[in-house]
Amino acid sequence: MKKLLVLNGPNLNLLGTREPQQYGHETLADVEENCRKLAAKYDCEVECFQSNTEGQLIDAVHKAGREFTAGECVGVVFNPGAYTHTSIALHDAIKGVDVPVVEVHISNVHAREAFRHHSYISPVAAGTVIGMGTKGYGLAIQFLLDD
Amino acid sequence: MKKLLVLNGPNLNLLGTREPQQYGHETLADVEENCRKLAAKYDCEVECFQSNTEGQLIDAVHKAGREFTAGECVGVVFNPGAYTHTSIALHDAIKGVDVPVVEVHISNVHAREAFRHHSYISPVAAGTVIGMGTKGYGLAIQFLLDD
Amino acid sequence: MKKLLVLNGPNLNLLGTREPQQYGHETLADVEENCRKLAAKYDCEVECFQSNTEGQLIDAVHKAGREFTAGECVGVVFNPGAYTHTSIALHDAIKGVDVPVVEVHISNVHAREAFRHHSYISPVAAGTVIGMGTKGYGLAIQFLLDD
Amino acid sequence: MKKLLVLNGPNLNLLGTREPQQYGHETLADVEENCRKLAAKYDCEVECFQSNTEGQLIDAVHKAGREFTAGECVGVVFNPGAYTHTSIALHDAIKGVDVPVVEVHISNVHAREAFRHHSYISPVAAGTVIGMGTKGYGLAIQFLLDD
Amino acid sequence: MKKLLVLNGPNLNLLGTREPQQYGHETLADVEENCRKLAAKYDCEVECFQSNTEGQLIDAVHKAGREFTAGECVGVVFNPGAYTHTSIALHDAIKGVDVPVVEVHISNVHAREAFRHHSYISPVAAGTVIGMGTKGYGLAIQFLLDD
Amino acid sequence: MKKLLVLNGPNLNLLGTREPQQYGHETLADVEENCRKLAAKYDCEVECFQSNTEGQLIDAVHKAGREFTAGECVGVVFNPGAYTHTSIALHDAIKGVDVPVVEVHISNVHAREAFRHHSYISPVAAGTVIGMGTKGYGLAIQFLLDD
Amino acid sequence: MKKLLVLNGPNLNLLGTREPQQYGHETLADVEENCRKLAAKYDCEVECFQSNTEGQLIDAVHKAGREFTAGECVGVVFNPGAYTHTSIALHDAIKGVDVPVVEVHISNVHAREAFRHHSYISPVAAGTVIGMGTKGYGLAIQFLLDD
Amino acid sequence: MKKLLVLNGPNLNLLGTREPQQYGHETLADVEENCRKLAAKYDCEVECFQSNTEGQLIDAVHKAGREFTAGECVGVVFNPGAYTHTSIALHDAIKGVDVPVVEVHISNVHAREAFRHHSYISPVAAGTVIGMGTKGYGLAIQFLLDD
Amino acid sequence: MKKLLVLNGPNLNLLGTREPQQYGHETLADVEENCRKLAAKYDCEVECFQSNTEGQLIDAVHKAGREFTAGECVGVVFNPGAYTHTSIALHDAIKGVDVPVVEVHISNVHAREAFRHHSYISPVAAGTVIGMGTKGYGLAIQFLLDD
Amino acid sequence: MKKLLVLNGPNLNLLGTREPQQYGHETLADVEENCRKLAAKYDCEVECFQSNTEGQLIDAVHKAGREFTAGECVGVVFNPGAYTHTSIALHDAIKGVDVPVVEVHISNVHAREAFRHHSYISPVAAGTVIGMGTKGYGLAIQFLLDD
Amino acid sequence: MKKLLVLNGPNLNLLGTREPQQYGHETLADVEENCRKLAAKYDCEVECFQSNTEGQLIDAVHKAGREFTAGECVGVVFNPGAYTHTSIALHDAIKGVDVPVVEVHISNVHAREAFRHHSYISPVAAGTVIGMGTKGYGLAIQFLLDD
Amino acid sequence: MKKLLVLNGPNLNLLGTREPQQYGHETLADVEENCRKLAAKYDCEVECFQSNTEGQLIDAVHKAGREFTAGECVGVVFNPGAYTHTSIALHDAIKGVDVPVVEVHISNVHAREAFRHHSYISPVAAGTVIGMGTKGYGLAIQFLLDD
Repeated sequence: MKKLLVLNGPNLNLLGTREPQQYGHETLADVEENCRKLAAKYDCEVECFQSNTEGQLIDAVHKAGREFTAGECVGVVFNPGAYTHTSIALHDAIKGVDVPVVEVHISNVHAREAFRHHSYISPVAAGTVIGMGTKGYGLAIQFLLDD
Repeated sequence: MKKLLVLNGPNLNLLGTREPQQYGHETLADVEENCRKLAAKYDCEVECFQSNTEGQLIDAVHKAGREFTAGECVGVVFNPGAYTHTSIALHDAIKGVDVPVVEVHISNVHAREAFRHHSYISPVAAGTVIGMGTKGYGLAIQFLLDD
Repeated sequence: MKKLLVLNGPNLNLLGTREPQQYGHETLADVEENCRKLAAKYDCEVECFQSNTEGQLIDAVHKAGREFTAGECVGVVFNPGAYTHTSIALHDAIKGVDVPVVEVHISNVHAREAFRHHSYISPVAAGTVIGMGTKGYGLAIQFLLDD
Repeated sequence: MKKLLVLNGPNLNLLGTREPQQYGHETLADVEENCRKLAAKYDCEVECFQSNTEGQLIDAVHKAGREFTAGECVGVVFNPGAYTHTSIALHDAIKGVDVPVVEVHISNVHAREAFRHHSYISPVAAGTVIGMGTKGYGLAIQFLLDD
Repeated sequence: MKKLLVLNGPNLNLLGTREPQQYGHETLADVEENCRKLAAKYDCEVECFQSNTEGQLIDAVHKAGREFTAGECVGVVFNPGAYTHTSIALHDAIKGVDVPVVEVHISNVHAREAFRHHSYISPVAAGTVIGMGTKGYGLAIQFLLDD
Repeated sequence: MKKLLVLNGPNLNLLGTREPQQYGHETLADVEENCRKLAAKYDCEVECFQSNTEGQLIDAVHKAGREFTAGECVGVVFNPGAYTHTSIALHDAIKGVDVPVVEVHISNVHAREAFRHHSYISPVAAGTVIGMGTKGYGLAIQFLLDD
Repeated sequence: MKKLLVLNGPNLNLLGTREPQQYGHETLADVEENCRKLAAKYDCEVECFQSNTEGQLIDAVHKAGREFTAGECVGVVFNPGAYTHTSIALHDAIKGVDVPVVEVHISNVHAREAFRHHSYISPVAAGTVIGMGTKGYGLAIQFLLDD
Repeated sequence: MKKLLVLNGPNLNLLGTREPQQYGHETLADVEENCRKLAAKYDCEVECFQSNTEGQLIDAVHKAGREFTAGECVGVVFNPGAYTHTSIALHDAIKGVDVPVVEVHISNVHAREAFRHHSYISPVAAGTVIGMGTKGYGLAIQFLLDD
Repeated sequence: MKKLLVLNGPNLNLLGTREPQQYGHETLADVEENCRKLAAKYDCEVECFQSNTEGQLIDAVHKAGREFTAGECVGVVFNPGAYTHTSIALHDAIKGVDVPVVEVHISNVHAREAFRHHSYISPVAAGTVIGMGTKGYGLAIQFLLDD
Repeated sequence: MKKLLVLNGPNLNLLGTREPQQYGHETLADVEENCRKLAAKYDCEVECFQSNTEGQLIDAVHKAGREFTAGECVGVVFNPGAYTHTSIALHDAIKGVDVPVVEVHISNVHAREAFRHHSYISPVAAGTVIGMGTKGYGLAIQFLLDD
Repeated sequence: MKKLLVLNGPNLNLLGTREPQQYGHETLADVEENCRKLAAKYDCEVECFQSNTEGQLIDAVHKAGREFTAGECVGVVFNPGAYTHTSIALHDAIKGVDVPVVEVHISNVHAREAFRHHSYISPVAAGTVIGMGTKGYGLAIQFLLDD
Repeated sequence: MKKLLVLNGPNLNLLGTREPQQYGHETLADVEENCRKLAAKYDCEVECFQSNTEGQLIDAVHKAGREFTAGECVGVVFNPGAYTHTSIALHDAIKGVDVPVVEVHISNVHAREAFRHHSYISPVAAGTVIGMGTKGYGLAIQFLLDD
């Protein structure tokens, strides 16, 4: 059975409690559950991982890369949180592996502070979904699993 | 029966012939047909419009705004092409009406020239989908029509 | 009888419905009617034109220029909307004709987004009025018609 | 009887002698006299003050603020001269009081050196009039006194 | 018989009357006539088009592209006027078709305002001729028609 | 008996009335009284001075410098208001004397406009306290008087 | 008994040995001990944590946030070290929780390299203390515990 | 008998005590005395003025301008101190009068902080002397008085 | 018999061997020979000079200037190579003499690295030809010799 | 026996599989083995450490610093990967310890994206080797061990 | 007998013919002659050298440095022309030798193009004289020779 | 016998006397001698050339390029001095020939002025060695000659 990684970066563990007017009331557990349900329709399992540490996110991308090469993982849905704007190391991690990574942002980063307008992830992403709330995770999954 | 506007900006009439390595081989007619088929599943009609003239795109956004207020149009799927990066007037048009507008880019604009990295449309869009090829139109439609 | 052109750019047709906290509740028709009344006191006719298309605004400036040379038109009151910030072509149109053009902005553009702080029209305008609401049109007319 | 402050900043005491091709031949006394005449038509007195010292201009804005709160002063017509481009302290002074302040520039600052294109006063002004010569003072007065 | 498009952008209809010290006294009709005469020596017809509307210029480039593919049109001589500096859409139009486009500027844009120093057209032009007055059109034609 | 200077810059005379959501309801007199009380616990007198004129603040810094050299004044608590961001002359005044100057800002200048993010005073201050309301004056005094 | 977190970021474990002319000779253990002594006067316990890993600092802020909501922790005294200038993720962590965080810098960051002049922490801090040596920790504690 | 103004700006009253490694040990009185002696050789009187207030320096420039027009004053030797880098108002004052103003800086401003590299005075100065210590005043006087 | 200077800057001696995909296979000798042939049709001699040293190119421009004044040389066709982007001294040399200088670039500098987009030569050139390969030399000659 | 640390940052664990045209086919294990062999010639041991986590790299630098002070470790060969361009914390770590750190980059970072052109490590490195492939590690070792 | 070098950079051989409104009518020979006469009053010889080649100017600075060390040359009066703004190599040459170099500019470079506002020579010059015409050479000589 | 070029740019002839704390006490002759000795171990001759003139350095690179093509020269060790930061012409020279060029800087350019942080040579160098003193020449030779 094929697998998909839903990867969440810094502060997304706060989902549902942090600035709800910006991020909504769903918790990360809710989001991950919805991802699992949607992927199940495509006979696909979902592995979920969240970390506040840049290095652990890099490790997770590398692992997904190895699993993709081994034919196990079909893609990554990745909300890199604030590392979007500062992490060249994550950019390199994604570029250094073969697995397609879809970048998701819950809020409209372009309607916020200027330092959130630039993404180091976008140039190496297989696609990007911005500002569609937690629906964005589902659309990213569809993009990866739809033929 | 509710309606959706699929709006395409400058040079998208070239789709299928222009830089196919960047934009793929589907023509605009193909894309519009696919949009119609997908929307039909939601009992929604699709109106399609393409123009190379900024002012006509503004007019189209205004019209969609009036139809939204009248309860006829539920949203706009908009690929603003190069006007993405230069048109404050389109930014104002979208901000000046109530209808939700989802911004779609076929290619990964962030992997191209620096002048394509900034969007005047994103800050006022209901959501943005980038780099997913013509699949992006479908995801935008789902976002607007899914409950 | 002498004539004056009141020229309005993109999205000003939305006046009265668009962001009323920014632009007030008067419609463009109201504004144009007030301009006509005020100019009438100076025995001057008012021609009104609004377009969302940059090229049609350029055409209108050219026409006013020809009528000025012919002694028919005495000036232009011009609210260039968002083209203020992006149109070198309108800058050139005004510079290329002789008719005095007074730039009017209803809202205080300097209290808004940074991209609204620069005007390509100001350097070639006979005068500029900012942030005085729709009263600004009247002051511009007085400037042009008062001796 | 209500009152209006006509406030002039650095070097405006040179009016009539300084760069007449830029600023015309009227002296500051002429301008102030014209302001008095125009305001008189609205049964309004005019107080005039000019200073080359930033701090004295701040003091004058504060005084006008206190008189506005006391119902004595209805507004300020302010030509901040070169402090327009450098004085955050005047920006704060205007923001810190309630009285409406209309910013006036005699010459077209946007057709001059780049360092004259930015104004710290505009974002907190009730309105701005640029490049209309000394007529600008009159239009500002009308804006404040017209109903 | 082969064909060549001479395409002129915004405000070039003013040629001969607009800032003659910058652009000379020849009218656009004169220029177009000279182009026709020169091309005739190469047994080539000239089609002329001028518009102040960005979208119509894009349409014209697209049409030339289709005619080039059909073996009818051999190239475009294009003076994009002020759109040179602002139109990514025209950049994309030229890049999206196969026909060679030679960029011509009558005046020395590099000796004028800073905002005229950057061209969105140059990177996709087959060649660029600047500051040679209306002679530039002729040199561009020779470049396209000479073996 | 040793002495301390509490120095306040432009617009701080408005304290308590100016933007109270930003600066609170205490007046400058209240703040100065609290400073006196706190310093008294350390057997230290407080001299207070406020001016809207940059030159008078420079004079005050010079005077404190002379008194420091004479063993009379132990330090300056200085809220430079808007001159923080524009006055190289105050920077030089502080650098040119020996007395330690502690910079205090009542509001969080870094959560406000970009032009308030840079301080010419900080590089020459003995310490800086930001965003702690009027409590900041007290902490600055403690820093100067505590052993 | 209420609690306070004293949080130290990268390289602060070197305190006392690293660039003593910049940071003094006290070790981190000395600083933490002094914090404990001072807080004890307010009947407040101090928890200390230092890490060189951005993600662990984020975790610590989250934990303090949860304890604040639970009424256990009253605030955080945070010296973010070099992450001050690069970590949007820490900015988001602080903004995403309710606990007040006071930013402390031992050295005068504004008198050092330009890349130390900007702080991502300041805009979301309850207050900031800069350049007062290790005394700054004590002032921050007083700010949090004083009524 | 003709006259010359030696004008000194902010902090130059500290000369001799302020950063002697930068500015030397001569006091302002010494410098002024040397200027008087040198000018006397040319049968020229010297008037000296120093102020820390921008507005008083502007007043002094205006007065010199009036005396020049009256044939009394032949020029100004001006060390604008820190106002060099921030005062557009002094730039305007010099430009607004006819008297030649020679700018003098004692220290090498170009070997110091970046914010001292730009001068608003230089573009309107009759000449500029930098980094030659207090000798620069004498050279400026010679420039003004030598035939 | 009149004369024309064909002047080539750094690295153009490599023509034909250096990056042929960028510069073609013609050698500098070929180009110079073609220039001679073309000019001969106008009864004009061609002098050719190439140097990698900025100072020698300046000397050559000066010499052409003297010959122009003497009625011997009618113009310069100048490919300044990389000095285009860095040499203010060559800018000054051209501005300091009367002879018309036409700037030629073989490759499309605007389609290459950003540091090749700015030219110090263009503002003082009589005309500029870019990206037309070695044909550009011929067009420049025609521009200079055609009536 | 003396010791040397070979420290590798983010994504260098991918060596040999990641973008081989950029980084070659050697694995990190190969590189480390070669370092051991070379150092052995100098009777020096090599300790190897790789991490994707910034904080762990800082910890490793601190440990090397302590071992240097203890006379055990003679230096660090450090390829900081993407943290080169973003980590002020690593800059501070190196500056805060005494051990010499030689910076190595396998690929030519200056021939790649602009965001790879700046290094926070270089200013505090004992030396830097760029673009020499994996040979660079050996040259760095020689630099540290050669007398 | 002591010696002084008067060194002139690119295009200064054109003096007297080049842009006389900017540089006056004196030739370089005139200037050099005046320098010789003035120096003679101090019993000092003048060596003169002009070159358009950066490398030859560097050589001349080196030679003056050697002669200074040998007690033969007392200083250099240097007008670096356009190399002022571009030559780090000349900056290094001056910094690398001991001889004092006084920088002279005939015209007011700060009243001209922006690219003439920055000097690489000023930070290493013993003094700078700007905009005083050819008188500047004389003042520079006095500065070097006066006790 | 194969050959290697050791090429040194402006001011390196001063080595040993110029700023010894930055560049050490070895002379250029010492460095060249050491290069010869090291290369001799690889049976390789060393040709040495130093010039302060950009054009002569370009000539030297061209010559090395021709000798490389002829199988005589195996590489260039190049310390471009200050031309590193300003010479696009040297960049082009290296790019225009085939011979590998290794860039060497004796001092740590990244720990010095900002204008020394950018290199036009690095993007076209076969490798770069920075801040390792004169040892860097030896490492560069090894890189070129080691298999």
